[in-house]
Amino acid sequence: MSNLIEQLNWRYATKRMTGEKIPAEKLQTILEAIRLTASNAGLQPYTIFVISNEELKKEIHQKACPQPQVLESSHLLVFTNKTNISSEYIDEMMQLVSTTRNAPLESLSGFSSSLKNYFGGKTEEEKANLASRDAHIALGTALIAAASELIDAAPMGGFNPTALDEVLNLKEKGLQSTVLLALGYRNQELDLLSKAKKARKPFNELFIKI
Amino acid sequence: MSNLIEQLNWRYATKRMTGEKIPAEKLQTILEAIRLTASNAGLQPYTIFVISNEELKKEIHQKACPQPQVLESSHLLVFTNKTNISSEYIDEMMQLVSTTRNAPLESLSGFSSSLKNYFGGKTEEEKANLASRDAHIALGTALIAAASELIDAAPMGGFNPTALDEVLNLKEKGLQSTVLLALGYRNQELDLLSKAKKARKPFNELFIKI
Repeated sequence: MSNLIEQLNWRYATKRMTGEKIPAEKLQTILEAIRLTASNAGLQPYTIFVISNEELKKEIHQKACPQPQVLESSHLLVFTNKTNISSEYIDEMMQLVSTTRNAPLESLSGFSSSLKNYFGGKTEEEKANLASRDAHIALGTALIAAASELIDAAPMGGFNPTALDEVLNLKEKGLQSTVLLALGYRNQELDLLSKAKKARKPFNELFIKI
Repeated sequence: MSNLIEQLNWRYATKRMTGEKIPAEKLQTILEAIRLTASNAGLQPYTIFVISNEELKKEIHQKACPQPQVLESSHLLVFTNKTNISSEYIDEMMQLVSTTRNAPLESLSGFSSSLKNYFGGKTEEEKANLASRDAHIALGTALIAAASELIDAAPMGGFNPTALDEVLNLKEKGLQSTVLLALGYRNQELDLLSKAKKARKPFNELFIKI
C-alpha cells in the first residue's frame, strides 16, 4: 500500500486472525524496519523474539496472554527491553558505530562518556523504563511496516509480564517483556471490530499549536 | 518517497537544520499520522505541542534543550503524556468511541470497567510511564511520516523535562514532557552525520527466532 495515511486507516488492532502464515519476505521487511528505526542515542536496548513455534505460542497463551491472536497469528513478536544499560553495553555499541563508520573509537569517547554519566545516574527501574520507550518507538514503526505490506497486526500491552519473562527465560538474559505484536491476517467473520470506525480524538484536542 | 525501507534508510537523527519552513500540508500529514496511530486500549493519553513560535523555541533552547535543532527546526514537536489516566478520562474516551461508532455506551461498560480496574491498581508513576510508552509509539509513527514526506526529523530524549514542563505549564494541565521531535530540513554542510553510515545491530543480535 503506497500512502501512509491510507495504511494507517487500513490497519486496526486485529482481534481475531485466520492462522494463515505470512510470506517470509514480508516478515523480513517488517523486521528490517524495526532494525532501522531510531532509538535514544542509537543504543537499540532491546531484543525481539519472533515466535512461530506453535507449542511455544500455546504456552504463552496459557500462561501469559489469553488473547486469541497469540494462537491465531502467523508470528508473535515479543518486544523485550534490556533491564540495564551498562557501561559495557555502551562500549559494545560504540564499537559497532566505530566499525560501521570506519571511525576511530577515540572519536566517540566524548559521546560514550556522556552516555555513561547519564545512565550511571539512573536506577535500574529508570533504565528499564527508558529502554521500554525505545522498544515502543520500534513498535510504532513495526505497525506501519506491517500495514505497508498488507499484514494485519495486533499490539498487545495487556499480558502477564512476569509469566512471560519466565516462559522465555528473560531474567537471565537481562531482558524483560514490554509489549507484544501478533502478525497475521484478519478474520473478518469473527472479528467484530474489523469494520468498526476508527475512534480518534479530533485535531484540536490532540495538538496545541503555538 | 514510496518504499518504507528506503524511507528508513534516508532518515537519520538530523543534528543541524536550515531553518527553512516545511509546507503546511506536509506538517498536516505528519500530525494526521500521529493522530491515527495505535495506543494502548485506544486511550491516546498524550498531547502534542506543535511549536513554530521563535520566541518560545528560544526559551526552550535556553532553559531545557540546548541542541541547535530546537532553533533551526521549522516546527518543534513536544510529546507530552498524561500523568494520570483517571476514571473520568476513561469515561471521556468511551464516550468518544460510542459517538464515533454510533454504539450505545452500555456496550462498552465491560471494557470500561476492566480499564478502570487496571489503571486503578497502578501508581501515578506507573500510569505516567505507560502513557509515555504510548507517546513513543506515536513518535515511531511520526518519524516514518516525516521521512515519507521528505521532511527531516530529530528525535531528542536528552533534555531537561522539569524545565520544559515549567516553560509549557504542563503540570497544571496534568501533562509531562517525554520526548521532542524537531522537524525541518537537514543542513548538509554543517551536519557531519548527514553522510554517516547508519550503525545498527545485525539481524542475529536483534532478533531471536523460535
